[in-house]
Parts: sequence; C-alpha cells; structure tokens
Amino acid sequence: MDKVIYIIGIGPGAEEYLTNQERNAIEKSDIIVGYSLYVELLKKVYPDKEYRITGMRQEIERCRLCFELSEEGKTVSMICSGDAGIYGMASPMYELLNDYPDTDLVVVPGITAASSGAAILGAPLNHDFCVISLSDLMTPWEVIEKRIRAAIAGDFAIAFYNPSSNRRADYLEKACNIMLDAGADPDRACGYVENIGRQGTRALCCTLKELKATKVNMFTTVFVGNSMSYIKDNKLITKRGYRCE
Amino acid sequence: MDKVIYIIGIGPGAEEYLTNQERNAIEKSDIIVGYSLYVELLKKVYPDKEYRITGMRQEIERCRLCFELSEEGKTVSMICSGDAGIYGMASPMYELLNDYPDTDLVVVPGITAASSGAAILGAPLNHDFCVISLSDLMTPWEVIEKRIRAAIAGDFAIAFYNPSSNRRADYLEKACNIMLDAGADPDRACGYVENIGRQGTRALCCTLKELKATKVNMFTTVFVGNSMSYIKDNKLITKRGYRCE
Repeated sequence: MDKVIYIIGIGPGAEEYLTNQERNAIEKSDIIVGYSLYVELLKKVYPDKEYRITGMRQEIERCRLCFELSEEGKTVSMICSGDAGIYGMASPMYELLNDYPDTDLVVVPGITAASSGAAILGAPLNHDFCVISLSDLMTPWEVIEKRIRAAIAGDFAIAFYNPSSNRRADYLEKACNIMLDAGADPDRACGYVENIGRQGTRALCCTLKELKATKVNMFTTVFVGNSMSYIKDNKLITKRGYRCE
Repeated sequence: MDKVIYIIGIGPGAEEYLTNQERNAIEKSDIIVGYSLYVELLKKVYPDKEYRITGMRQEIERCRLCFELSEEGKTVSMICSGDAGIYGMASPMYELLNDYPDTDLVVVPGITAASSGAAILGAPLNHDFCVISLSDLMTPWEVIEKRIRAAIAGDFAIAFYNPSSNRRADYLEKACNIMLDAGADPDRACGYVENIGRQGTRALCCTLKELKATKVNMFTTVFVGNSMSYIKDNKLITKRGYRCE
C-alpha cells in the first residue's frame, strides 16, 4: 500500500469540533505529529495514541519528521489548529513532497476560526469576506497593509487571524488605523472572540474606534463587519444580501 | 427551559464531515428544518428524525417555520450546507429574532466549501484569501465586480461560491474577465472542485485564461490563487509565506 500522511486541522481543539473524517484519520494513524499546544488538546480525546511534538516556528522540521516517519512505514497524521489549509501545514507539506515523491498527502479539512468564532459572535461573515493574518513573520507588513486597504475598498467583512503577540502588541491598532484611513466608518460594527472552543471563551462586540483601543491576546480572532453590518444584543450581524426581504 | 433553535451548517452533506457538536444538536432536536437537497443528505445519516422541507428561495418562510415550531415547544435544528454563517441562515435568523425575543439561537459551525474544496485541490487558500459569491440574487452585480477588483488589487487568493446557474451561465467568464482587466496574469494558477463530498467529486487545476473558457455547474467551488500560487501534479498550492524557508 502507498504511504499516506494525513494533514488534519483539528478545529479549535475541543472534541466537539472534530469531524468523523478527522476521527477516522487519527484512529488509522500510528503516530500523530504536531505543535505541543495542539497535541495537548488532542491527547484529551485520544490519550493512548503515540505523539511526537515539535516546537513553535519548527514548521519545516515538523513536516520533515512526518515524511521520515512515513518512510519508516508508519501511517502519520500531522495536526494543526483550525483548518490545515488556512495558514496551516498543507502548503509546506506539498512543497516538501518533491523530496518524498512516493507519499500520498490527504488534507482533512477542519473548522477554521473564521467559522467557529463567527458562530459565537452571531453572523459576522454572512456575506463576502476576507481572511487576513496580521503576523508579519513570513509576510512583509506592506503586503498586509495592501490587503487591509483592498478589503475596505471592496467593502468585505474581515476576519483577522494572529491579531497580536508579545512582539506585535500594537498590530491590531495599526490595522484599525489603516482601515480608518482607507475610509471605514469609526462606528463600523466589529467584534472579537478569545479562546474559541476552550476554557475562558469570551466574545465582545464593539465599534471600529473601540476596537482600535482594545488589547487582545494571541488566542483571539477579530471580526470587522462590512458597511452594512450591525450589532444587536452583543451579536455582530452581517446581512446576507443587500435587498430587503 | 428557554427555547433553543440550532442553526447548523452540515458541511458538504456526507456523514464524514459532521462534527460531534452538530451530531449532538441534531440528536437533541425534535424536528429538522431545511431545503430539500440538504434534508435528503442528512436523512441518510439520521433516517428516523422528523424533517420539514421548504423550497429554494423560501429562506424567510423557512426561518419563520423554525420560530413557529419553537413557539410550539419543539427543539428545532435549521440546517444549511457548508457553514451556517457563510452565505447561510445565521444572519436571517438573527434578523427575525426581533419578532421572537424569548428564543435562543445557537449557531453550530460546519465545514464550508472553501475548506472542503481546498482540501481536495491541495492548498489553494494557505495565505490571506477572499470568499466571494457570484450570485446576484441579493447583491447587485456592481458590488460583486467591485469586490473581485479589490481581491485582485490586494493579491488575495479567492474562493468563488455560486459560480454558475442556468440563469447565470456566463458569470464565471465575466468574473475572469474582471480579474484579467484588474491585472491578474492570464497564467494565474486556478482550480475548481465539483460535487465536494458527494458522488462524482472532480477536481481540476488550470490557468485563469483556461478557467475563463470553462463551464462549471452550480455545485462547483472555484479557486483562484494569488500571484505566488502554482500548480504541481494537479494540485493548486498557495505558499504559506513570502519568505523562503
């Protein structure tokens, strides 16, 4: 049989977000590889599986480890948070596949924070939307700024991933300033969700100018509505269409 | 106990994409309400549940039916395909909540076509991306065109929902012309997936100029890479970052 590596987005981490397809892939795997935080979350669901942990920013080592274990004849699952194809490990795994051509990669989709966070916040992405990461670790800030401006020009709703870290404590404020400069109303309806699907989940709605003054932690997904979005009873709602029904 | 309506995106429809949270909500419900196609799919998983069907474009009637059944004391699940918060029924349900204030709405996230289609196609959305519907049923075409231009200006990867219907057979071609006019390279890496998670799944990669000449059916999700995306072995890959690792 051909060698198979599953690349699995486990969603926010709680058991309730796992799909049957994910469970099947994990159960078929001899070994699970991932970043420590997500391995700890999955261990609560599958305590008896064999795991291999690599550290933060060791993404390429983590990918190579999967291919090496696969070469040894193991069925491997590489786990990421959210969806493996959205800022996850699907792309680097395909890039490294050149070096291990007789392996099959199977990407197993998961619930990304845009979906899980939106569900908690109401319906912030219920029309055309953009997903933008504020991490400039692998993307120049000018590209991020260009995308924020384009998102406002196109009147998209927006989900911001990685809105903050210790090193980037002011990035959300910078992003808010760009949106305001690009013409977004200071009263634009926004919101954010912390610790989605984990202990301490907290969802809050606010205006864009309030968002600008907000400090969020790194486990936060930030939502900015389009020009028609509104807040009601601490829910952020983006209308499904432009016509009244 | 308060009245609860679950608003559930069941993903592409196959059992393997259901999450535990979705299963729990469905199992707790006395009655499931949905459009006929998705009810038929869910019936394969839960044949013994009670279902109520409404037709296409009867979205508001479908929402009201949920609230009415809830008023009668039933626990109701409203099902949509994909994710209920992405072109789904979360938003109209919140809009109608004004008329039924003592009901709790619980949105249960599901796997949207951007995730499930991307997983089949490789890693087309592995960096910042936009999701745009080409249906002008509730959105003026000028707004859609503005968003397509903004998506290209921002060099986003793009997932197009509702790329075609009998009435709108040339909309994908129109969208491709707008992207080309906005400066996208005719050789931009693209792809599409038909019948995700259902019988007859088919994934194909092509260039933007080939996409322009392609007829897709209404059960297709179309992916357009960003300027750095590439095709290899019929997989569409968008790089995770701009820096080489």
